[in-house]
Amino acid sequence: MTARFTLSIDAMGGNAAPKMVVDGVALAAQKHSGVDFLLFGDEDKIAPLVRENSGLADRVRIRHTLEVVVDTDKPSTALRTRRNSSMRLSINAVAESEAAGVVSAGNTGALMVMAMFVLKTLNGIDRPAIAGVFPTARGQSVMLDLGANVESDADNLVQFAVMGEVFARRVLGVQSPSVGLLNVGVEELKGHDDVKRAAAILQGSGLPIRFHGFVEGDDIAAGTVDVVVTDGFTGNIVLKSIEGTAKMFVRFLKDALGGSLTAQMGALLARPALHRFRDRIDPRRYNGAMLLGLNGVCVKSHGGTDAFGFANAINVACKLIADRLNEGIKEDLAGLGGHSLPMGEASVGS
Amino acid sequence: MTARFTLSIDAMGGNAAPKMVVDGVALAAQKHSGVDFLLFGDEDKIAPLVRENSGLADRVRIRHTLEVVVDTDKPSTALRTRRNSSMRLSINAVAESEAAGVVSAGNTGALMVMAMFVLKTLNGIDRPAIAGVFPTARGQSVMLDLGANVESDADNLVQFAVMGEVFARRVLGVQSPSVGLLNVGVEELKGHDDVKRAAAILQGSGLPIRFHGFVEGDDIAAGTVDVVVTDGFTGNIVLKSIEGTAKMFVRFLKDALGGSLTAQMGALLARPALHRFRDRIDPRRYNGAMLLGLNGVCVKSHGGTDAFGFANAINVACKLIADRLNEGIKEDLAGLGGHSLPMGEASVGS
Repeated sequence: MTARFTLSIDAMGGNAAPKMVVDGVALAAQKHSGVDFLLFGDEDKIAPLVRENSGLADRVRIRHTLEVVVDTDKPSTALRTRRNSSMRLSINAVAESEAAGVVSAGNTGALMVMAMFVLKTLNGIDRPAIAGVFPTARGQSVMLDLGANVESDADNLVQFAVMGEVFARRVLGVQSPSVGLLNVGVEELKGHDDVKRAAAILQGSGLPIRFHGFVEGDDIAAGTVDVVVTDGFTGNIVLKSIEGTAKMFVRFLKDALGGSLTAQMGALLARPALHRFRDRIDPRRYNGAMLLGLNGVCVKSHGGTDAFGFANAINVACKLIADRLNEGIKEDLAGLGGHSLPMGEASVGS
Repeated sequence: MTARFTLSIDAMGGNAAPKMVVDGVALAAQKHSGVDFLLFGDEDKIAPLVRENSGLADRVRIRHTLEVVVDTDKPSTALRTRRNSSMRLSINAVAESEAAGVVSAGNTGALMVMAMFVLKTLNGIDRPAIAGVFPTARGQSVMLDLGANVESDADNLVQFAVMGEVFARRVLGVQSPSVGLLNVGVEELKGHDDVKRAAAILQGSGLPIRFHGFVEGDDIAAGTVDVVVTDGFTGNIVLKSIEGTAKMFVRFLKDALGGSLTAQMGALLARPALHRFRDRIDPRRYNGAMLLGLNGVCVKSHGGTDAFGFANAINVACKLIADRLNEGIKEDLAGLGGHSLPMGEASVGS
């Protein structure tokens, strides 16, 4: 990555903000020497934290504001009343071209609504989607929507498929990504009307997408497809279910290996291997969900993450900017030619 | 379990049927000395398999039929055209009081529709739900619906909550089970209309249920509540996502432990502990999902399971019969008194 750019950071979002955020910025700054950071939040708290990290002060500018979005804020209320919050101002910086992208670990709903209001959706996209990369038995895949929307109709799902396909191609480097629609069965007759209609559109539209058809829950970890498309309600619950299962597994494994002296000795010998295993499934490695479909790069970090996880969210933003993902989506949408995307408005009454 | 009863078995359902089924019956027969089995299917194939298992012939009767439900059958077609199938006849046996319950590893949709048609739903229940028990960090919990229905409205969700609560009390032995509604956030304003309405009903109805409120995906494995209530679309996908994740984890762990000689030696020393871990998360141990809300015990085994898994599905059916779950649901529904359950019909136009 040779291009220099500035990243806008909501320094007050996340459970352990602003310390977790500033420490995460410090970690990321070491990795991305070409990136500067614009931090929004309480200067009295942020400035000392920046000074604690040697060399960071040269790379960081602070924009002071005391207003914050809290977790209990309703998205619509946050949009109306938190106009000078660290979250809102950090998004504004992208709209005003002061920054190439924004990262926040704050209230997801508020971030989504504010980003949509400030940055606007791309031409051809009704609703943005949250996309996340996760490990599979075959490598990695991307899934969307992970919760930007509570309900998604067939047209939304088709648009998610297009965005996910571009993402897999440009960011994951898959040449001709396969796209699957998450459902309760793989047969055509399975599922509710929205997934059935979306499948019919993807199958018959002539869109330049390698549509695999329906996939089921166990296809996610198997890596059956490169892009898993689903509505935000299902996607959010599935993502958190998998995270919860991962946590339980690590705990069960620790319980088992701590059970006897022989097991403990075995675990000691296998320690590097067990660490490799733990690293491979570490959710912090996959932190940083992208709001796709906006005129600007916007990455949501998990609110409960630590500095290492937040640094990964910054990595994700840097990669999206370097890979010019949004330009890719725009080009691909424009290149669809006769196969125009179904839009929500156009399908009303259909 | 001292009571003698007969269990009806669809011997032709499941990928490895009828061998997997008969071997599973043989395993279960050793454990449940008071239970006899009525097997439906191709006698020419089943009889030799029964003879292979010593002592089993005394406990088993075979009802011959060549008609089977196949996986590609649409549920409505199966209901109309497979009237003499092993699945249908095995359900009929329950309606005709020849058997106390039925177990099938066949086509889920067909089983659901046939069981609903033949056995009818309990008074006060609009739609049956598939319930499954799963391991958590705290012990075990029950989740429903795992896919009996593709869409569930608020009234359905409330009825699932009532059935799940009785299940946790009578079958899992939890004194005052907590019930949570799966959602994308725990705050009241989160989620779509159906979950919000269901939460409002459960909160305000005066139903004798300890309603915890909304839970998120990671609460499933954490065991935050004893009963996780969700719609069949989400439930089915979450269940399979967790199963897929479990499989991937075991594979990643094997990869890591096979990586170096030291790791292999460590794994050898820790082998009993690792086996304990594997057993704890073995999906076959949790095989056997119950169709709740019907006038009769009906258990669905995973189609891809083996004899050990099928025997566990039989265990589940035996437990439901011994614990008189259906009688419990009926009594509890009747005992609701003034707090009558919301029924789908009553809420039309509301």
